[in-house]
Amino acid sequence: MLEGDLRSVARAISLIEDCAPEGEALVRRIYGRTGRAYLVGVTGPPGVGKSTLVDRLIGEARKSGQTVGVIGIDPTSPFTGGAVLGDRVRMSRHSQDPGVFIRSMATRGHLGGLACATSDAALVLDASGRDIILIETVGVGQDEVDIVRAADLSVVTLVPGAGDEVQALKAGIMEIADIFVVNKADREGADGVVSSIISSLALAEIPEGAWRPPVLKTVATEGRGVAELWAAVGAFRRHSPDAGMKRQVIRQESRLRELLAQRYVEQVDRVVPPEEFQQFVTDVAERRVDPYSAVEAIMSRAARALRGPVLNAAVDHGAGEGR
Amino acid sequence: MLEGDLRSVARAISLIEDCAPEGEALVRRIYGRTGRAYLVGVTGPPGVGKSTLVDRLIGEARKSGQTVGVIGIDPTSPFTGGAVLGDRVRMSRHSQDPGVFIRSMATRGHLGGLACATSDAALVLDASGRDIILIETVGVGQDEVDIVRAADLSVVTLVPGAGDEVQALKAGIMEIADIFVVNKADREGADGVVSSIISSLALAEIPEGAWRPPVLKTVATEGRGVAELWAAVGAFRRHSPDAGMKRQVIRQESRLRELLAQRYVEQVDRVVPPEEFQQFVTDVAERRVDPYSAVEAIMSRAARALRGPVLNAAVDHGAGEGR
Repeated sequence: MLEGDLRSVARAISLIEDCAPEGEALVRRIYGRTGRAYLVGVTGPPGVGKSTLVDRLIGEARKSGQTVGVIGIDPTSPFTGGAVLGDRVRMSRHSQDPGVFIRSMATRGHLGGLACATSDAALVLDASGRDIILIETVGVGQDEVDIVRAADLSVVTLVPGAGDEVQALKAGIMEIADIFVVNKADREGADGVVSSIISSLALAEIPEGAWRPPVLKTVATEGRGVAELWAAVGAFRRHSPDAGMKRQVIRQESRLRELLAQRYVEQVDRVVPPEEFQQFVTDVAERRVDPYSAVEAIMSRAARALRGPVLNAAVDHGAGEGR
Repeated sequence: MLEGDLRSVARAISLIEDCAPEGEALVRRIYGRTGRAYLVGVTGPPGVGKSTLVDRLIGEARKSGQTVGVIGIDPTSPFTGGAVLGDRVRMSRHSQDPGVFIRSMATRGHLGGLACATSDAALVLDASGRDIILIETVGVGQDEVDIVRAADLSVVTLVPGAGDEVQALKAGIMEIADIFVVNKADREGADGVVSSIISSLALAEIPEGAWRPPVLKTVATEGRGVAELWAAVGAFRRHSPDAGMKRQVIRQESRLRELLAQRYVEQVDRVVPPEEFQQFVTDVAERRVDPYSAVEAIMSRAARALRGPVLNAAVDHGAGEGR
């Protein structure tokens, strides 16, 4: 995988996606070899043409001789966990190019599972030597916003003619944009969307010398404006070479908190017998105990169990002993 | 608040929204008085007319003499935490009716903050005596799906003419629907959407005698089809009177897990000094430690601190001692 073998990369990402323990072991081993790739997040409401835009950006990156990894985040069904956009992504015209690796991910879990799995998959692509990693996600929902917010650069995509609600969604992703794209710019109203973004930016107090997000028009289906978008990516990278490290810190902090939460719940599931946990659930459902008191009780229960051998095992595991 | 005073209800929800400790104390006190209201979730991609549909459902509920509480979940900006749909919701034609309480919520936190706050706000409305609680949310993102999935009944809304991606999103919310609505049904393609939902349902194996989600056409702006939708809500309620308790259990189980995660991270923040936590973050960002080892170390660190007075205080707090 470290030599860039695509089948090994695909297998590694599958382990991560399935939350297999081997996935974690792999990330631990490769982690020191990561940090070289440049992560570009592409987000926006449904229907703005993100996939087409990503497809075009792949083309630009390849023209400049860089290898590309793409992670597409699929809306996941809570019941089937199915990846529905996968087929569309695989039909990309770059699918025969070994310099392009495209992976559509669907994640099952709760508690930051999406963000964690995406982040680990990006680490795999990074360690495998990809220069650019494009992450495509719908810009709705905290998880999705978190993913893009943590990228080295974020492209927020909008279209003319979207209704009130779509424009409102924009507010949630406005502040994470390093570059705005108004796609489908051959449609009526494109200039209106551009001016409305520019007026919003005018309200934001951007310090002297700081990066001012450009607002670019594209027609991704015809490739129009894509070279300019790629140039803007390069300009941001040159302007803010240290943005990467600053965002690394933000990314890692939220990552560690998510992982802490996830690990703790796993630990509780290990030490509190399922029937006891279910009794708490039933008590809450039937209004005998409120949720806050139940959680306190579960935490006390888990703490008592952990004061036994499990906790000692965790401490002996070693990572914490150096501090 | 328990007597239904609207200003008290509004204040109570504000406490919850701000994550104030008083909000939690309140929920603990009122919890035993909840469980009577009927929760209806209304979800669907942006732009399908959910708010108009909710407005019409309020009208139907009022006609049948029931009081209504509405919670609208706003897409939240990770930076400003702003509620952008709030004004629109407040402009509802029901705003002068004391039998209708409408609240637009924006939640800041991570780790299930959205689901928890919505759930607590619904408890407040429930305890205040509202008969029907309508929860409107964009059906994208795990948090949003979780909210609707836990309702007593879920209405999934689609429209004709939505693109591939919007239809794909549907897959994520398909399985949670008790009733499908094709809104804006006067548009071309409405029957196509209806048939496509019916074919999807035909693939799902619905057991004999189980509820088969109806697919209804509405033009919410003109009120067309809304009476039929309200009748379907009643039919589901009569068909599955125990759906409520089953979903209560699902709802409470995921609620307890989210709360466990949230409380644990708060506990870690309390017992691990911020500069130590930041050192872990920096070590991970600079590739000296991988995230999994860092989290193990933080958990060990927190466990050591908790074996001191903090843990004992938590145990003495009492809720767990009965078990």
